Amino acid sequence: MTLEQAKEKLMDLQKTITAYNHALGLLFFDGATSAPRGTAANRGQTMSVLSQALYRLNTRPDTVELLAFLDENRSALNEREQRMVDLLRKEGRKMERIPAEEYMAFRRLSVEANAVWRTAKEQSDFALFAPYLQKRFDMSRKIAGYCAPDVDPYDFWLNDNEEGISRALCDDFFASVRSRIVPLLQAVQSRPQLDNAIIKGRFPVAPQAVLAHKLMDVLQLDPLHVGLATTEHPFTTSLGSHLDERISTHYYEEDYSYSMFSIIHEGGHALYNTGSDDSLAYTVLDGGVSMCVHESQSRFYENYLGRSRAFCEYLFPVLREIFPEHLKNGTAEAFYRAINRVEPTLIRTQADELTYCLHVLVRYELEKRAMAGELAVADMPDEWNRLYKEYLGIDVPNDRRGILQDSHWADGYLGYFPSYALGNAYGAQFLRKMKETVDVDGCLRRGDLRPINEWNRQHIWQYGCLYRPADLFRRATGESFDPTVYADYLEQKYTALYDL
Amino acid sequence: MTLEQAKEKLMDLQKTITAYNHALGLLFFDGATSAPRGTAANRGQTMSVLSQALYRLNTRPDTVELLAFLDENRSALNEREQRMVDLLRKEGRKMERIPAEEYMAFRRLSVEANAVWRTAKEQSDFALFAPYLQKRFDMSRKIAGYCAPDVDPYDFWLNDNEEGISRALCDDFFASVRSRIVPLLQAVQSRPQLDNAIIKGRFPVAPQAVLAHKLMDVLQLDPLHVGLATTEHPFTTSLGSHLDERISTHYYEEDYSYSMFSIIHEGGHALYNTGSDDSLAYTVLDGGVSMCVHESQSRFYENYLGRSRAFCEYLFPVLREIFPEHLKNGTAEAFYRAINRVEPTLIRTQADELTYCLHVLVRYELEKRAMAGELAVADMPDEWNRLYKEYLGIDVPNDRRGILQDSHWADGYLGYFPSYALGNAYGAQFLRKMKETVDVDGCLRRGDLRPINEWNRQHIWQYGCLYRPADLFRRATGESFDPTVYADYLEQKYTALYDL
Repeated sequence: MTLEQAKEKLMDLQKTITAYNHALGLLFFDGATSAPRGTAANRGQTMSVLSQALYRLNTRPDTVELLAFLDENRSALNEREQRMVDLLRKEGRKMERIPAEEYMAFRRLSVEANAVWRTAKEQSDFALFAPYLQKRFDMSRKIAGYCAPDVDPYDFWLNDNEEGISRALCDDFFASVRSRIVPLLQAVQSRPQLDNAIIKGRFPVAPQAVLAHKLMDVLQLDPLHVGLATTEHPFTTSLGSHLDERISTHYYEEDYSYSMFSIIHEGGHALYNTGSDDSLAYTVLDGGVSMCVHESQSRFYENYLGRSRAFCEYLFPVLREIFPEHLKNGTAEAFYRAINRVEPTLIRTQADELTYCLHVLVRYELEKRAMAGELAVADMPDEWNRLYKEYLGIDVPNDRRGILQDSHWADGYLGYFPSYALGNAYGAQFLRKMKETVDVDGCLRRGDLRPINEWNRQHIWQYGCLYRPADLFRRATGESFDPTVYADYLEQKYTALYDL
Repeated sequence: MTLEQAKEKLMDLQKTITAYNHALGLLFFDGATSAPRGTAANRGQTMSVLSQALYRLNTRPDTVELLAFLDENRSALNEREQRMVDLLRKEGRKMERIPAEEYMAFRRLSVEANAVWRTAKEQSDFALFAPYLQKRFDMSRKIAGYCAPDVDPYDFWLNDNEEGISRALCDDFFASVRSRIVPLLQAVQSRPQLDNAIIKGRFPVAPQAVLAHKLMDVLQLDPLHVGLATTEHPFTTSLGSHLDERISTHYYEEDYSYSMFSIIHEGGHALYNTGSDDSLAYTVLDGGVSMCVHESQSRFYENYLGRSRAFCEYLFPVLREIFPEHLKNGTAEAFYRAINRVEPTLIRTQADELTYCLHVLVRYELEKRAMAGELAVADMPDEWNRLYKEYLGIDVPNDRRGILQDSHWADGYLGYFPSYALGNAYGAQFLRKMKETVDVDGCLRRGDLRPINEWNRQHIWQYGCLYRPADLFRRATGESFDPTVYADYLEQKYTALYDL
């Protein structure tokens, strides 16, 4: 095999992997959008066959040899090719170390556990879900043991979600933000509450859908390559490559701001994915590099931009055209205050910008301790409720609105929650850096996001997965990660809003 | 390899084939329903990789050996296993004979040709599409030559769509129905026209969607396993197995009967697929056996049941609840006459029950003669227009509403159109047989389709692809195919309606 032939095979291999992932992603998307309710087992059957084919492709001798050969000749590869080989070898080695049967069982557990979780949530019955959660922890520990026997299992999963992070880093990060956010929240709660009548009422789906498309337009999402669906829980997915992106939303009739911010949030994910350089399509470098960086973008658009006073000044007249009756006496300032009202609530996905991190913190502590065997699965609901009381000051009435609210643990995402909070904090540093060269508030006031998107494209999006998250962060900001920037931002914003 | 092991491998092979077909079907479904417009190339890339994998699976030595081994031991196989082996070998041999490159090129042509056809239709520009249609005929002749060098190419494709049919059979069939339908149409046209004001007006989508779901309910489609989507052209597809079925419709605001009959038509397809015995799931025997039998079911529900006086008597009060203002002065009889109004028009999918076959006849004659080299692609539009004048008595104003109206030739379906007409004719014999034991009109008047579905399930649906279409037909009806039953049915119905 010549080097040129090997490079060609490398590209073919990635095209094949991409195609399988496209099919698997579309099966998931279909399940979340159009599929009739009784079809999960049928879809599970197909996903199992395709996952197995993908597993074989990643682990079969000619793939392993090809990647080893390219690695031996890595000095003759360019930066992109080296990274492709590294990412593919990492994934292949992980799969190789896990016995095929256990790998498949681990994947199957997600399908089964999700179905049980759904019922358990509907019936608010944690006991129903507990055996699956137990299996989730047991199998995750076992898988971690196969892949990285010398590493703490929770560290393995944290790092699997986000190259380079660890329990130590998360402990420091959460301790730091907690020490700033909890007192800030207490101060806010001692002040008169902000009025949010301007976003509450009865808003039919049709005008909300008009707003959704208007926002996609303002975000500069390309309608030829980004579609919108409606789902129970909003999400974003790339299908096959960054050239086919789907976001979804959920319309609540009583509050148009929920769908509005879900569009901006998912739009941030979609912008990041679709911003990959086109030449990365059909390679493992295509799309966002990690969940932290992804959340740094989604929450950047949702909060740093979407909940800013400047953007409200642009958006309010647009909203008044869509909901003329409800907003006829409103002002941009009243809208700004309404969407930034702080209120400790039970549900993470509906949390305000300030309390959001505390929701994540509860989940982090629980999964970390359960993984280490310091917390029994049976005791997790009580511990969940205790921590909500301690950090957010509220009582959890039942498990449906408590520990059963999120699907992550059912779906197999352990060590994933911290990325939501870390991403928030990354975003604060991106914003500070961007403001050195871009008139962010001016852009927002005009509703012209092009210069903002351009900065993100140039510094973050275009690279896809070429750089490790920490390296990408350093290249973009010129500094290392510092959670105090995030805490400072929150303090400044809420001190002004609540007149502290 | 023991026989037991081989049988197990046979089932595994079919599960794998099913999974690939599920993914390919879902990619198609996504393209027709949710996908943003600029994503076809991305989807094409994935479909090409998966088709190639499927091609390899069908043709690789261990598959060929397995099927040969089972065939040698066919006396030890049950009826189902024998049929599985036969169908798989037939497909495998076809693929083996076509060089891989040409097989892929043939599949790629469908994706490209469909995109060009779409533009050509929009712009009513046949010249744009002509080179692709030429390629379609050229490649189809070549493929037929590889697979069946001793058979006439058009016969090969007819038989590929419908085991056992031939040009001779179609010629006879069309000559027979033409000799009955053309004079009948002329007689109808000499009489006063039926009024159809009761189905025309302005009907918003929301109540039409209510009607769609009501009809699915009346048809006894299982909502856990049959989903409804909206698309430009209504269709039905099984995803993975008969356990996940999707139908689609299109709502026209000016006429609620279009969506209504598309739901009943596609519902007939879906009933047939979902009626397969559950044990056939994930095998090649799952779902409908052929296009003729499929159309015999879809058009059975649409016309023999849906456009019958008895069903109108049941349905009219339902419709009046959904469209109270428009229907307040209507009657079931007026509705029956409106939906059975005969009017030669340009568009096949909107044709009435009587003229429908003539639309198909035009397409049959054209593709048959083009395939034989007796008609140049460039001359096809003129010939299309001439035949519409001759059979239907109408002038075709442009190619958009003429030869460019259907996507079949672009998509690769040559020799497919006749099944629409043959299916119609099959249905007439199924109905006559069913009426020997089922009070069809009584069921329809009560809106209780269970006894009708049960007859179809018992005699047709449950078998999936176990029997060849002609054998299935003979088992169900106890007789051989006789197109005069169909012609008699039409003559009787329209003689009464138009008082001939």
